[in-house]
Amino acid sequence: MKIAIDAMGGDFAPENIVKGVNLAKKELSDVTFQLYGDGAKIRQFLDDETNIEIVETTEIIDFHDDPVAAIKSKKDSSLVRAVTAVKKGEADAVLSAGSTGALLTAGLLLVKRIKQVSRPALMSTLPTADGRGFDMLDLGANTENTAHHLVDFAILGSYYAENVRGINKPRVALISNGAEESKGSPTVKEAHEILSAMSEINFIGNIESRDLLSGGADVVVTDGFTGNAILKAIEGTATVLMKEIKSAIMAGSVTTKIGGALIKKPLSVLKDLMSTDGAGGAAFVGLKAPVVKAHGNSSELAIASALKQIHKMLESDVSGKLVEHFEKMDK
Amino acid sequence: MKIAIDAMGGDFAPENIVKGVNLAKKELSDVTFQLYGDGAKIRQFLDDETNIEIVETTEIIDFHDDPVAAIKSKKDSSLVRAVTAVKKGEADAVLSAGSTGALLTAGLLLVKRIKQVSRPALMSTLPTADGRGFDMLDLGANTENTAHHLVDFAILGSYYAENVRGINKPRVALISNGAEESKGSPTVKEAHEILSAMSEINFIGNIESRDLLSGGADVVVTDGFTGNAILKAIEGTATVLMKEIKSAIMAGSVTTKIGGALIKKPLSVLKDLMSTDGAGGAAFVGLKAPVVKAHGNSSELAIASALKQIHKMLESDVSGKLVEHFEKMDK
Repeated sequence: MKIAIDAMGGDFAPENIVKGVNLAKKELSDVTFQLYGDGAKIRQFLDDETNIEIVETTEIIDFHDDPVAAIKSKKDSSLVRAVTAVKKGEADAVLSAGSTGALLTAGLLLVKRIKQVSRPALMSTLPTADGRGFDMLDLGANTENTAHHLVDFAILGSYYAENVRGINKPRVALISNGAEESKGSPTVKEAHEILSAMSEINFIGNIESRDLLSGGADVVVTDGFTGNAILKAIEGTATVLMKEIKSAIMAGSVTTKIGGALIKKPLSVLKDLMSTDGAGGAAFVGLKAPVVKAHGNSSELAIASALKQIHKMLESDVSGKLVEHFEKMDK
Repeated sequence: MKIAIDAMGGDFAPENIVKGVNLAKKELSDVTFQLYGDGAKIRQFLDDETNIEIVETTEIIDFHDDPVAAIKSKKDSSLVRAVTAVKKGEADAVLSAGSTGALLTAGLLLVKRIKQVSRPALMSTLPTADGRGFDMLDLGANTENTAHHLVDFAILGSYYAENVRGINKPRVALISNGAEESKGSPTVKEAHEILSAMSEINFIGNIESRDLLSGGADVVVTDGFTGNAILKAIEGTATVLMKEIKSAIMAGSVTTKIGGALIKKPLSVLKDLMSTDGAGGAAFVGLKAPVVKAHGNSSELAIASALKQIHKMLESDVSGKLVEHFEKMDK
């Protein structure tokens, strides 16, 4: 299998991207890594060229570029060329740590939606106290969603959790303002009714956002506006608390050594929330092939983790299975 | 001034409610506390009857009752009688730690909306790292809101922060999926445009939910569905992290004494998030008089804190000022 990689996207590109490939290469011997970007710069960080293809590109899309305009004007950018490789069948999946907006737009225009999926969604795996984790979508690919979009998200998330994370009959829940089925906006109530009648997914009803990190569900479905707000509220809370713990240590009310131990080991959820090293990237689901966005400030570990995630997506053929699922619904 | 108090509502009623009144009475000598409920039970916990009026009621609305049905069927409940006192002008404000739904319904039906406020909202003051705190609304009185509702919330929140919390020109922000004004759902974009043109409030634009606890705004406006999800995501994250810190201490990787110190002092935001003792209650804003909901499991400190908050609302006449503001808009 071939993974196209935007080597020039992200805060620490190409260094962390290429070093992440060096790491992933050791474990994924059946993958060809196609690196799109400035060859000379890429080679500076590359261990060796086994299973590597370097594709020269001349442009870079950065965070200031308007996503839609950049896709059209910077056709020789590492991001557009990497996504185009999937479109042309020259690669099976694509990874970028560059502009989220540009990757979503390029994915939608070039890789294209699965027929019958009305809206693709952005999905990440978040940590839970029990180590199992949960997938949440949509995290902000959309700003408004209908009940039918939410139902599609439930199917996309369920297939992902089962095939990529290996969870048997993943528990799928819908974010609402109460666990009872009578709770929610009209959109949520409508989605609840449709999901309750579906036999192909293990729908467990509504979930409140306070029960996410304690492991209340394996797949958490919500509209892109709410999902984005929940994700950032969790991140913001973790960040502020981490800062408070650190300043407590610095203030000397706790010795450095003990404080350090407290941060390192027991607060695993906090650590997982603060780091993208092991979490993989955000998958743009609902497209015909895996399109994965790594965080802009990804370390080499985070890039390697995202590549392993893509490897699992390709190995399990989750995108192919989803195409098939939605084709059946079409009949 | 007179505050009507539902002495029978909440997990620890009437004990914590009455003990909270004992505490508040020491500081608020200009208040008459009207306690609605079972007189004998109330007197068991009451220090003395100075500035106290006890009003006998025979029924109690509990958490299992359907809010709307209960308001109609349990007319002699402590909750309905306390709210009715405000309607009749026998009290200036009302506090309950009972069913949120029943209090919202009773408030809406009996105390009534301020003319021109399309939808009342539930608002709480949440902690920030710098101790300043912020008010967020709507936390779930509504499940859907229009741009005009959001604009009303901004005005209600701004008046509250200025009058009750004493913040000069409170910075009002709108929750969105990005700080740029181009970000957001169509509803948020429309509200952004209207708020930007308003001179009477200090609108600072969009805010992402990751910037709330670090003090990015004094008043945070969002629809009831998103606000409820954000609030519960913050609570859930704080709860899981608090548990992890506690289990780290129990596991002996940190000594009990040092661990205890770490929890007690430096993690003030975490502590504030986990406790309602000092935060006051959730104000149901947009009604003609203060209607405040204390948490069901409120301690006596939390009840006293909510009574002091109501005292400030009455002293500053924030409800009267809001009635006036919206009357002007009506012309």
